[in-house]
Amino acid sequence: MSANSDALLALHCARLGIVFEDDIRPGANYDVAVEHDGQVWISGQVPRVLGTIAVSGALGAGVSLDDGQRAAAICVLRALTILRQRLGSLARVQRLLRMSVYVNSDASFTQHSEVADAASAILYEVFAPHGAHARTSIGVVALPKNAAVELDLVVALQRP
Amino acid sequence: MSANSDALLALHCARLGIVFEDDIRPGANYDVAVEHDGQVWISGQVPRVLGTIAVSGALGAGVSLDDGQRAAAICVLRALTILRQRLGSLARVQRLLRMSVYVNSDASFTQHSEVADAASAILYEVFAPHGAHARTSIGVVALPKNAAVELDLVVALQRP
Amino acid sequence: MSANSDALLALHCARLGIVFEDDIRPGANYDVAVEHDGQVWISGQVPRVLGTIAVSGALGAGVSLDDGQRAAAICVLRALTILRQRLGSLARVQRLLRMSVYVNSDASFTQHSEVADAASAILYEVFAPHGAHARTSIGVVALPKNAAVELDLVVALQRP
Repeated sequence: MSANSDALLALHCARLGIVFEDDIRPGANYDVAVEHDGQVWISGQVPRVLGTIAVSGALGAGVSLDDGQRAAAICVLRALTILRQRLGSLARVQRLLRMSVYVNSDASFTQHSEVADAASAILYEVFAPHGAHARTSIGVVALPKNAAVELDLVVALQRP
Repeated sequence: MSANSDALLALHCARLGIVFEDDIRPGANYDVAVEHDGQVWISGQVPRVLGTIAVSGALGAGVSLDDGQRAAAICVLRALTILRQRLGSLARVQRLLRMSVYVNSDASFTQHSEVADAASAILYEVFAPHGAHARTSIGVVALPKNAAVELDLVVALQRP
Repeated sequence: MSANSDALLALHCARLGIVFEDDIRPGANYDVAVEHDGQVWISGQVPRVLGTIAVSGALGAGVSLDDGQRAAAICVLRALTILRQRLGSLARVQRLLRMSVYVNSDASFTQHSEVADAASAILYEVFAPHGAHARTSIGVVALPKNAAVELDLVVALQRP
């Protein structure tokens, strides 16, 4: 990817008015990301900003589509911030492999793809013109800390 | 795999009476499959045939096990059709790595494995004798467009 | 990893008083694990011990956090036992990549991470000091055979 990716990530965070910790750490005994053999596996991210879940609850049961999309955007920005912190720069990313998006929803909700689109759009902008990724979106009955959305990523790095 | 895989895929589609688009595309800003470094990551597929969800609703809440299995079969045939369209031929597949199967179900349903078996059986037939794959099956509270089943795949390609 | 990993796995099983089959097999037409190109993909494991689901039901709807953690521990020990059976020894593992933890829960439950911690703690002990792993934990409305927890793993092997 280009060095622009880091600037675009910062721009998207600024637009949403969010600032993440300088060194994002997991809550417990696992790691936020594992790099091995040219792949980085990023742990499931909820829309947490400085210790607070920005969007809580379930789509179809009180959380609007707009708020769900904002949650998805914050999740992916948090995942990319972890990636930048680990790699030094997003310029080391070569390809995005899969994003899995877990939408806290009730049984009547069917717009999981529309929620995930908000995260995909950011990937396309930040990594243009190489933002393509496989994606899976599902509805889940509950999420850690009652987050509205959780997502994880697998990315491939440039070979040295 | 053998060149027979393409013929077996066509046979299974014909048996179910389904015809997919000549060029399956995603609904929005992601890709249906990403190939990188000998792996293909296929996006979550619902039982969509020419724009229509063939089986909607939840197992345990109106959708029968038979219909759930038909949904799983259509999902995996759609995923394999995407793979064939991308690769030119399924003969380029060397190994199947993981299939994740998401079954739209209520809290009382427990036969998620039996639903997934319908997709696994097709993988075994199409890629015989190399159809083995790791599998995860879970129950989800809702799926995009109220699909009864969604599944995704990771496969490994022959090295050139 | 070290040869100690096998001994630590046996110790953890003994502590919980569980004995797995000598050759763990899947219920149907898939495989419990697939090894390819230095990665092993392990199928979703429920807390099954010699044919019986040790912990059934949903967190937040009758299953306590303690029992959920015991379920997660049994799941990960079962996954590691499969891995040891396949590889001959856990000493062949180089890195853990991702563990996905699916917690059978109702909509009110929010401690999915705490359930998953029980499995992560075992990974850290068995593979010390290389137990780090990416992790995703979500709440699911139902699981195969009404299991309380299901989890899967992707691990990387030492290169020969």
